[in-house]
Amino acid sequence: MKSDLSVRGMRDYYPDVYSRLQHIINAWRKTALCYGFEEFEGPVIESLDLYKIKSGDEIIRQLYNFTDKGGRELALRPELTPTLARMIAKVQSEAPKPIKWFSIPRCMRYEKPQKGRLREFFQFNVDIIGEEEGLGDVEVISVAIDSLVALGLTERDFVVKINNRDFVSEYFKSMGVSEDISLRLYKIIDNARKVDEQTTRDAIDELNFNQAQKKALDDYLAIKNIQDLKSLSYTNDGKEALIYIFSLLEAAGMDDFCSLDVAVVRGLDYYTGTVYEIYDRSERMRAICGGGRYNHLLKEFGGIEIPACGFGMGDVVLGEVLAEKGLLPAYSRQIDYFLVRITEEELGTLLKVAHSLRQKGFIVEHTYRPLAVKKQMARASKVGANKVVIFGADELGDGKVTEKDMLTGKELKKALTDYIQ
Amino acid sequence: MKSDLSVRGMRDYYPDVYSRLQHIINAWRKTALCYGFEEFEGPVIESLDLYKIKSGDEIIRQLYNFTDKGGRELALRPELTPTLARMIAKVQSEAPKPIKWFSIPRCMRYEKPQKGRLREFFQFNVDIIGEEEGLGDVEVISVAIDSLVALGLTERDFVVKINNRDFVSEYFKSMGVSEDISLRLYKIIDNARKVDEQTTRDAIDELNFNQAQKKALDDYLAIKNIQDLKSLSYTNDGKEALIYIFSLLEAAGMDDFCSLDVAVVRGLDYYTGTVYEIYDRSERMRAICGGGRYNHLLKEFGGIEIPACGFGMGDVVLGEVLAEKGLLPAYSRQIDYFLVRITEEELGTLLKVAHSLRQKGFIVEHTYRPLAVKKQMARASKVGANKVVIFGADELGDGKVTEKDMLTGKELKKALTDYIQ
Repeated sequence: MKSDLSVRGMRDYYPDVYSRLQHIINAWRKTALCYGFEEFEGPVIESLDLYKIKSGDEIIRQLYNFTDKGGRELALRPELTPTLARMIAKVQSEAPKPIKWFSIPRCMRYEKPQKGRLREFFQFNVDIIGEEEGLGDVEVISVAIDSLVALGLTERDFVVKINNRDFVSEYFKSMGVSEDISLRLYKIIDNARKVDEQTTRDAIDELNFNQAQKKALDDYLAIKNIQDLKSLSYTNDGKEALIYIFSLLEAAGMDDFCSLDVAVVRGLDYYTGTVYEIYDRSERMRAICGGGRYNHLLKEFGGIEIPACGFGMGDVVLGEVLAEKGLLPAYSRQIDYFLVRITEEELGTLLKVAHSLRQKGFIVEHTYRPLAVKKQMARASKVGANKVVIFGADELGDGKVTEKDMLTGKELKKALTDYIQ
Repeated sequence: MKSDLSVRGMRDYYPDVYSRLQHIINAWRKTALCYGFEEFEGPVIESLDLYKIKSGDEIIRQLYNFTDKGGRELALRPELTPTLARMIAKVQSEAPKPIKWFSIPRCMRYEKPQKGRLREFFQFNVDIIGEEEGLGDVEVISVAIDSLVALGLTERDFVVKINNRDFVSEYFKSMGVSEDISLRLYKIIDNARKVDEQTTRDAIDELNFNQAQKKALDDYLAIKNIQDLKSLSYTNDGKEALIYIFSLLEAAGMDDFCSLDVAVVRGLDYYTGTVYEIYDRSERMRAICGGGRYNHLLKEFGGIEIPACGFGMGDVVLGEVLAEKGLLPAYSRQIDYFLVRITEEELGTLLKVAHSLRQKGFIVEHTYRPLAVKKQMARASKVGANKVVIFGADELGDGKVTEKDMLTGKELKKALTDYIQ
């Protein structure tokens, strides 16, 4: 027995499992297409160097990397953004702006398999390249929201937590905090929802803030919604951008799905401006989606400086949220017609009708072997066929076949020409 | 500049390239579904051991394999059959037979990139497990044919060359040839279409056949069609099976696409019974598709002995055939509605209409920035929008918008309620 040949953290998509994945992927694709995004794909294998440019430490640690037979240092993609950046760099001068692209890549990370994390996953990526902060960011957020709504989730199920990196960084700068301390503070704030309050407080204490800095940080963390932000006497461009983005979200009718959350800063250093994460309202799970603006990233990949924004949404946490809420459809085979033959003489006619129905898009089955009619009917029931057509019961010699509706049990006599034109 | 970061033999699917791949994948998927096959998928990463069981030497030589951070010997899948075998072994006792599965996996092989060969490709796999030789084989062949027909190819463009491994092996045995020599003869015959005649003749000479054996081999190679086969005085079960398969292909109306070709033996040792390859009629390219029956293969993967048949069809050779015949659709973005606003006051209404149209499945765009109407109209033309709706030209104060058909140039006044229910 070699039943231990499957690899830890990898997924076998049996037809029922695959249909649930396809359900999610279809909702993603359909939503992005409706917003006018174009689909692209990159290779699963990239050069290791591509990820050394800007991927975070955690991603680099978790890479599947190896040397190929030609001595190349390669990696299996852990995320799509570096591939996007590499591809955009080649076309960004000619392509009409804004470039609106989406992709549903399969990615791999060598991390401990656990709830919400597997070593391979699919990730919905939606990006706009060549557009400054504003309605583009709102459109990308709307695609994320509408794709979740298409899967049956509502504003009671999830929330888009939005912040602005410029607002935060300028605010921290106004506190008289160095860039280095700012970055540590980002990580502490970003981490706060995963650890207990004391851990966060201890980590902040280590930064040795003075009284005024502590007060300013408390004031920052006390901002709970857009009204609080508006009432804040302090102001900067990031704050104005945040207020503008929320006004556009309201105009787009998306505001019920969104809230300001100053604890959202995104772990990766390359984000600028608007950033967001989507959470299940219960907040018992990891983020469903994370994204934001990354205006300086693309030029690091051989391109020119160009504004950009986008998000990534994996299938694993989302699949768990949908499963928990009973929103993943039950799997059943769909067979429109099951064709039954009384004798093998009918086989040619049966195959012609099968072909004709399939050309029209119907799903058609029949047994391969000449079984008793009873057994053929039993198989039709078992596969859940909607209709059965019986060939060879032509007692009157009138060239007709019997069509039975398996739901109602009603039978009809039909001419072959009803099926074959 | 880091523009050299793409990896040799890997593919960047820009939206136009991706749309051509999707065109092929959609035809494959739709055809398999109509025949009642269920879709499954496996992981891209499998254990190296999985391929040591039965994959051919050439495949093993071309594996992308590596050791992961946990010390596991892994490989990127070069084909799907071992994954299928591994997955079937887990469910074959409970699953109702026949099991009809298809998949469109992405596979990787480290081979020299050249015409018809890339280091990564998609491969349509269609298999029936648990069914003896007969109509099942014909159905699988029909799926291959119909998927090519769905892509615009006809019986003048391609041919399914069919043979039977039992027929060949028994015939060679009747010549008094050892199993070892038989296997060498398979490879020589299989290779014949890729090398010149003299090379083949020399290779056969090396086998040191006697006069009777030479005569028998000549008689074998002289079989050009099913009539020749029927006239052959020699008979065995494989010959009968071949004649039966051709009679079923005729009943299924697939005979115009098929011909008997005794040179088709398939390189891999695990094939039994019916085998076939699909070629462009010009025969200037590699096979588009290869498949056959493999009754003894699955038990090697920890399962029990179970009859099976199936094929693999890659996207690379097929894509080249379609491109050569002009059968790959030109790429163009499809935008159903482009929404134009005269002032920013209209933005909220515009976004509501956009959302409502998208909910109905339409593809809708608008500019993000408040541009002059002329510029918005120019962008609508550029993206090839079918219709433009203009908001804010409500001179009469009647709450109506103007809808312009971009093909005919006709304009209509419409109420907002025409778009929003």
